[in-house]
Amino acid sequence: MTSSLTELLAVEPLDLSLRDELQRLIDTKTKPPGSLGRLEALARQLGMIQGTTRPGVERPVMIVFAGDHGIAAEGVSPYPQAVTAQMVANFVAGGAAINAFSGVAGLTLEVVNAGVATPLPPSPALVDVPIARGTRNFARERAMTRDEAVAALAAGAERVRHHASLGTNVIGFGEMGIANTSSAACLMSRLCGVPIDECVGRGTGLDNAGLAKKRNVLAAALAHHDDAREPLDVLAAFGGFEIAMMAGAFLEAARSRMTILVDGFIATSALLVADSLAPNVRDYCVFAHASNEAGHRRMLDHFGARELLALDLRLGEGTGAALAVPLLRAAVAFLNEMASFESAGVDDRSDRHA
Amino acid sequence: MTSSLTELLAVEPLDLSLRDELQRLIDTKTKPPGSLGRLEALARQLGMIQGTTRPGVERPVMIVFAGDHGIAAEGVSPYPQAVTAQMVANFVAGGAAINAFSGVAGLTLEVVNAGVATPLPPSPALVDVPIARGTRNFARERAMTRDEAVAALAAGAERVRHHASLGTNVIGFGEMGIANTSSAACLMSRLCGVPIDECVGRGTGLDNAGLAKKRNVLAAALAHHDDAREPLDVLAAFGGFEIAMMAGAFLEAARSRMTILVDGFIATSALLVADSLAPNVRDYCVFAHASNEAGHRRMLDHFGARELLALDLRLGEGTGAALAVPLLRAAVAFLNEMASFESAGVDDRSDRHA
Repeated sequence: MTSSLTELLAVEPLDLSLRDELQRLIDTKTKPPGSLGRLEALARQLGMIQGTTRPGVERPVMIVFAGDHGIAAEGVSPYPQAVTAQMVANFVAGGAAINAFSGVAGLTLEVVNAGVATPLPPSPALVDVPIARGTRNFARERAMTRDEAVAALAAGAERVRHHASLGTNVIGFGEMGIANTSSAACLMSRLCGVPIDECVGRGTGLDNAGLAKKRNVLAAALAHHDDAREPLDVLAAFGGFEIAMMAGAFLEAARSRMTILVDGFIATSALLVADSLAPNVRDYCVFAHASNEAGHRRMLDHFGARELLALDLRLGEGTGAALAVPLLRAAVAFLNEMASFESAGVDDRSDRHA
Repeated sequence: MTSSLTELLAVEPLDLSLRDELQRLIDTKTKPPGSLGRLEALARQLGMIQGTTRPGVERPVMIVFAGDHGIAAEGVSPYPQAVTAQMVANFVAGGAAINAFSGVAGLTLEVVNAGVATPLPPSPALVDVPIARGTRNFARERAMTRDEAVAALAAGAERVRHHASLGTNVIGFGEMGIANTSSAACLMSRLCGVPIDECVGRGTGLDNAGLAKKRNVLAAALAHHDDAREPLDVLAAFGGFEIAMMAGAFLEAARSRMTILVDGFIATSALLVADSLAPNVRDYCVFAHASNEAGHRRMLDHFGARELLALDLRLGEGTGAALAVPLLRAAVAFLNEMASFESAGVDDRSDRHA
């Protein structure tokens, strides 16, 4: 293990020392105790992550990592592989869902070529750092080497360091990669010990025959890589470059004490990788939504997490994570701006007057 | 029935003529069909309400109606009645949760004295139009007269007309009123035909003994007003002035073709009243969240509605409705801003190429 990787895995557990003080502050606010529900938990979490009783949402960022997957050759997606590069061009041009939602949420959007199969035209709106032109077909061989996996983790971490240096303290990650639900399903099956049939979904919209084929392809691939058990080996065997970069980004964001918005099935598979390498990373995560992609609910259960948004999304790109940003803003706003019973001259409960 | 009331109840059904065109547009966007889930339904709904394929969120408003309840004398809330007026002062001073959330959501906040028990100091930030100084105790007599109920409906409608004249096309309603979960539970029980025990919750935080007492008080009150069956009579028997004004506001907002954000248990009880008077009003509603107050889930079921936010709120004030505004913005943003497969040069599914 390289020294930079060792460093990347040194994620501190959440500092709980402000927890009681945050709770006390929340309970002085002019509202019945607990009545802001999960926003109260969010306010506590942001306060603990940032080490302050006055947390904020500063320069929030969405990074979308794109990469292609050799497994696409097995016909596991209804869309042709060329769509990955075309959608990157769409992100760069501002025409995708994540562009619209980033605008609404006030997110700075960055697009990263993590390993798209075709060269992409240079653009100031694209960070062009591909590890290779797509992964290899993991039905036959490992998707990437361990060196490639480590390089991708480091590259993802580097993008987060860039934004940390600019003052970002809230970050979300999205992805684009035709066939990447296949990669995520295999990562989930191996890292969580869940049978592959419970991890495989329709992705962008497979019919029943397509779904059955995808299950067979992935079950065979898992058997083929039965030796891949250690997290980095699992990532190398089944991962995508966008997933590996995202896993590195999760690790670095936690190290940088950022609050991390977790998107859907693919993003959570990257978190599974990060979490298997450094379990403290989950303390910094907010689970934005429950994807309609089969398997995501079970991933959330793995983390003991509940979603904030009930929107039946299944698009990826970080869309669900972007939509949760206003909830973080609301959590810090109530903590920072609300009056206390005392300052507002509001009577507390009769049974607390004693 | 007065002619102005007759006019208020003339809510047109949603004009469905743009539905297919909106769906076609949504399906051309660069994403798998249906993958934006319930945001796609929101985009369709806003388009149909506004009668355009390019809907917008214009000058969104939150109106918080406040009123006191004679039933508070029965000890059905852990907070003293004085808290209603104190919280109105807090809204006016900017220190409550709804102030913080309105700021985050870009909502214009208006506070209306619908019938608080004590006179309120004049303020440019307060619309001071009380029907009376609180309702009567409905454990003994009707909370208000039919004339008062009609006057409250008209006053709520007037507030909405004011904002319609300023260009508002999205509106939410909140409330403040100690003991108003008792009022809402009785409205629900009578209007939905649900046993009172399934409508009563802990409100701002009753303990088990308090909850049992509240159930007994409300069961007796329902029996006492067994004759109140027609919607206006039900409202007069059990309503609050803030609930009655909100019901009028729902009706006028639907007549004005606004998109209406429905908050929690109290706000939905006001919608029950409005809906029992003019069922088309529900077509204009977006159900923001599921309150943790017992009974709200069943109200949502009554409307066949699912919440957008899973936040375990139980505060009222319109807080849940305010938090859903960014989702409306996201829905119109994707419809208005996303590229189509054709315009972006993105390949559609392989099986659609034939």
